[in-house]
Amino acid sequence: MRVQCKHGLALLLLPGLAQADPLTATDTIWIAIAAALVFFMQAGFALLESGLSRAKNSLNVVMKNYMDLCVGTLVFWALGYGLMFGSSSTGWFGEDGFMLSQADGSTWAMLLFQIMFAATAATIASGAMAERTRYAGYLCGAVVITGVIYPLYGHWAWNSNGWLAELGFIDFAGSTVVHSIGGWCALAGVLVLGPRLGRFDKNGKPRDLPGHNLSYVALGGFILWFGWFGFNGGSTLSASIDIARVNLNTQLAAAAGAVGSTLYRMLSRRPVLLTETVNGSLAGLVAVTAGCAVMSPGFAVLTGLVAGALAALGARLMLSMRLDDVVGAVPVHAFAGAWGTLAAGLFYEGDLFNPERITVQLLGIVVAFCWAFFAALIMYLAVSVIAGLRAPALHEQRGLDLSEHAETGYPEFPQNSLYDASMTRTVENRP
Amino acid sequence: MRVQCKHGLALLLLPGLAQADPLTATDTIWIAIAAALVFFMQAGFALLESGLSRAKNSLNVVMKNYMDLCVGTLVFWALGYGLMFGSSSTGWFGEDGFMLSQADGSTWAMLLFQIMFAATAATIASGAMAERTRYAGYLCGAVVITGVIYPLYGHWAWNSNGWLAELGFIDFAGSTVVHSIGGWCALAGVLVLGPRLGRFDKNGKPRDLPGHNLSYVALGGFILWFGWFGFNGGSTLSASIDIARVNLNTQLAAAAGAVGSTLYRMLSRRPVLLTETVNGSLAGLVAVTAGCAVMSPGFAVLTGLVAGALAALGARLMLSMRLDDVVGAVPVHAFAGAWGTLAAGLFYEGDLFNPERITVQLLGIVVAFCWAFFAALIMYLAVSVIAGLRAPALHEQRGLDLSEHAETGYPEFPQNSLYDASMTRTVENRP
Amino acid sequence: MRVQCKHGLALLLLPGLAQADPLTATDTIWIAIAAALVFFMQAGFALLESGLSRAKNSLNVVMKNYMDLCVGTLVFWALGYGLMFGSSSTGWFGEDGFMLSQADGSTWAMLLFQIMFAATAATIASGAMAERTRYAGYLCGAVVITGVIYPLYGHWAWNSNGWLAELGFIDFAGSTVVHSIGGWCALAGVLVLGPRLGRFDKNGKPRDLPGHNLSYVALGGFILWFGWFGFNGGSTLSASIDIARVNLNTQLAAAAGAVGSTLYRMLSRRPVLLTETVNGSLAGLVAVTAGCAVMSPGFAVLTGLVAGALAALGARLMLSMRLDDVVGAVPVHAFAGAWGTLAAGLFYEGDLFNPERITVQLLGIVVAFCWAFFAALIMYLAVSVIAGLRAPALHEQRGLDLSEHAETGYPEFPQNSLYDASMTRTVENRP
Repeated sequence: MRVQCKHGLALLLLPGLAQADPLTATDTIWIAIAAALVFFMQAGFALLESGLSRAKNSLNVVMKNYMDLCVGTLVFWALGYGLMFGSSSTGWFGEDGFMLSQADGSTWAMLLFQIMFAATAATIASGAMAERTRYAGYLCGAVVITGVIYPLYGHWAWNSNGWLAELGFIDFAGSTVVHSIGGWCALAGVLVLGPRLGRFDKNGKPRDLPGHNLSYVALGGFILWFGWFGFNGGSTLSASIDIARVNLNTQLAAAAGAVGSTLYRMLSRRPVLLTETVNGSLAGLVAVTAGCAVMSPGFAVLTGLVAGALAALGARLMLSMRLDDVVGAVPVHAFAGAWGTLAAGLFYEGDLFNPERITVQLLGIVVAFCWAFFAALIMYLAVSVIAGLRAPALHEQRGLDLSEHAETGYPEFPQNSLYDASMTRTVENRP
Repeated sequence: MRVQCKHGLALLLLPGLAQADPLTATDTIWIAIAAALVFFMQAGFALLESGLSRAKNSLNVVMKNYMDLCVGTLVFWALGYGLMFGSSSTGWFGEDGFMLSQADGSTWAMLLFQIMFAATAATIASGAMAERTRYAGYLCGAVVITGVIYPLYGHWAWNSNGWLAELGFIDFAGSTVVHSIGGWCALAGVLVLGPRLGRFDKNGKPRDLPGHNLSYVALGGFILWFGWFGFNGGSTLSASIDIARVNLNTQLAAAAGAVGSTLYRMLSRRPVLLTETVNGSLAGLVAVTAGCAVMSPGFAVLTGLVAGALAALGARLMLSMRLDDVVGAVPVHAFAGAWGTLAAGLFYEGDLFNPERITVQLLGIVVAFCWAFFAALIMYLAVSVIAGLRAPALHEQRGLDLSEHAETGYPEFPQNSLYDASMTRTVENRP
Repeated sequence: MRVQCKHGLALLLLPGLAQADPLTATDTIWIAIAAALVFFMQAGFALLESGLSRAKNSLNVVMKNYMDLCVGTLVFWALGYGLMFGSSSTGWFGEDGFMLSQADGSTWAMLLFQIMFAATAATIASGAMAERTRYAGYLCGAVVITGVIYPLYGHWAWNSNGWLAELGFIDFAGSTVVHSIGGWCALAGVLVLGPRLGRFDKNGKPRDLPGHNLSYVALGGFILWFGWFGFNGGSTLSASIDIARVNLNTQLAAAAGAVGSTLYRMLSRRPVLLTETVNGSLAGLVAVTAGCAVMSPGFAVLTGLVAGALAALGARLMLSMRLDDVVGAVPVHAFAGAWGTLAAGLFYEGDLFNPERITVQLLGIVVAFCWAFFAALIMYLAVSVIAGLRAPALHEQRGLDLSEHAETGYPEFPQNSLYDASMTRTVENRP
């Protein structure tokens, strides 16, 4: 296979890196480190999602994170990588590079790095769909996402011959390619599943089902933020002094995201929650991912601020539509990802608010929604029918840890049943 | 802005790195990785401090860590970086580089790295002041530390034109600049706040208020140690073969710190606590930070051993003065930092025990105390009056998680009230 | 000391790296990063082992991990490194390089990296021997492992003059040198200690004593996997484009290990446990460690698949022999390590199934067992007699946290006694 496997944008930014050039040892170590950091984001997702679930389902969601990584790794190696980065005669899908066993160092580096990205896209859905999804059904979905849904859009946007890439679509490290795609899949899953038992009362008012360990949520947030320095910085795909500003923008936008979320809460006279603060910084990270290589730091701050507030608003919007997204994955990944992709066009350095660029960005955002949401909707409906997606009510009441894995997370610690407790209060009468 | 942004010492050590030279791609990836590792230390602080707090305040302290990072990032970008590394006509403060939006790669790398250091200095106080400090008041303090207190001392010691730097003051990676400054701010905060309710009985005897999750403390210790390889190794500010010995010294001193603390406990016939062991290794890390680039490994071991014992002794000293430092931040960061700065002078390679060098080191140590302690004292007193620093007693009894954030960390797990339990025993009758 | 300190294999693979060449700055940063990642594996071990222990012993096992790292660091610097990588006139042990204080950058880098490996080898035993081993006795064992048992075998296999290295034994990053050696020491410890109270009933049937926090187990698994990118990737001992395939193979084998373990559970109609899944991926990692630089990705997948199933089978075998290995360290590290070392010979790229190579690999595997198992057996028996290895029954019942450290991990959270609960059911009647 030709070494054709670079993010579309990277080629535009780094013309020194001609396609046929092998990477240097320095490039390789950078990509290896960045890949390891992106890998570690899986632990962040697992902790964040587990912490926001009730204790009786905490293992099940961790297991889904662990196994979608494992299954996704093998599926993306076998199928997805070729579809995404293989030679493209049409601009719509790759035609070679499946189950690679012979290649040069540059290709191995790219495959390693891209496996981690595919696993990230797959794992976003697990949090939104937590506490009520069957293990086997969830893993079927992860296979389709890493094998088909994610790589096809990725081909359009990141393969140098992809049709969106040829239009000039900018998504440096994947606000849309990874995060929105994952977020729209999550939205489809939430719709197909329906809300958890007891999440909404008879009048449709949401009840509070608080997560069992908010320390895990904070640690998960820190780990995700840490890993993002590999996610964004590594998307240069070579060692470069551009990495410094990319990661500086990443840091500023994340900080601004948390501040934006906090300001939103304070202005709407609500308590400043840990959950919202962490999600605010993650929204800032998601949003800056598209444009971190093409905007100046001041705009990175602005992008993050807006994203943090947007995620908090989006979470309320989801609730008002009776959509039960356990961890806020849709607002954080889909909504903030779309905003960030737009921001990359709006705030493009040296050419602010160029309407042509903005149009292409909007096209990419809409295409991502149409493709990922409807493909995932059909896929999850098919899984529902064939393998079963929603756990039986009795399993959900007992908790999926026991019913699916015959283990409990904290066997020595007695636990209150939050399902019952939650019956008596709603989000509205929360202090 | 000219690229003037290097640790004073680094310039002395690495003359090949002339000021106007831009960093190479290899330098950039090293600084980017080191910055990410220093970032991750925030998670270590959060876990250590949360684990040593009671469950009812565990989120509040994590939130302080999370938000002082976010606020500190923005404030240091807007104000602190310019004060610290801007052009200096007097040697006392920087005059440009505020809110940078245009710069070269070397400057971006430096700004990224230094943001992480500023956030570290700010977060040290959060643990010492845990369980009784209002969220808003604490964040006001973090703004002043990252915006003024830390950058001004940093200018004196690390700006190549700073007056301490010109005297030859050695603080390679910040035993004093980061850790002692943070530690003295923490001491000021502890004094202004007073002890937690129930920490001392009527006769001034300390009561044990054990932390709610010591596994977090150990994990926090591991993460901090891990991050320190970026903190010290990255302070070369370029890729260099000197990094190997820097990080070897870091490893040896950390190990020796834990051993020093353990030996102290064994010789004083007390049980070997996890808490003291972890703090011992952190004290070793803090102490070797100043001299890790200028001492041979044998002396790094000695520096760590002494630091570990010193931190254990210092914790007893604090208690005997009825100072309630929840996590031992003052002994670990301020005392061990001062010792390490002295040790960098004492054990300077090839020129041991040079009295001139020792004098300069002592001057730097004393100046750090006088500046940071009194500046923070005034600042925290002002915050007390203006915004309020100490939480109301009722909030403290209920726990700050509920009263400040309307969340609880572990809603499904019933908890004993340690405030009551602690009434019945003192540290002295602990086994 | 001459720079003689390279893995035997690395020399074979990378002839460009002649012995006398100092490392470049790029090599140094790679080794520094890899060393930090390997360091961080200690946190993974601590969490995994603590999570699989009962709450009353959770701190004790963390403390063992923390202190064997600290003690091991100092002992390996003082003694082990010289024995392992010092000049060798016989091929059996090193003769210089003890307590290094003067050396060049390449040697410092090697020492730093190898300290982390030694600490890994030492810490493997702590999990197998958890919940019943005295703290002081355990640490005596760690001293002997890092000072003598591990470095001597390491000398044979990795010193360029070692006798196994000269026969052509392949163990790129230590499936045998680190993991099997650690695993056989663990087996010896388990034999000397005997099972925990209540682990087997009167008829020898195992009772379930579930770990207190399976979220820690998963997080530990993620951290170990993350660190392994430094463990395997760093074993190139220089920056190189070979790192990409090494880490790709690492990722594929880990994923395949979890899948192998899951398939084994499903085929034997048992529930898919988190514990077994995590151990499956770790077995995949251990197994690919020997051959990750010499096999193509397809064979890495195969190596991992087999290893995952083997670890699950091995755990059953251990139970059937009434051996109480709390975390499954022996199957994961010793059995999978032996398999992986064999696989490195079987699947050697371009020369599959060469009987000579397989013979040498088998020799290395057998020698590792004979040396490490019997040396550790004698050592632990000696520790039993001299310092005491097994905790008194009363301490074991109360928990080692309280009896050895006078602390408890979770003082605010009431705990069920699992010792009693476990009396009423056996592994066999587990769902």
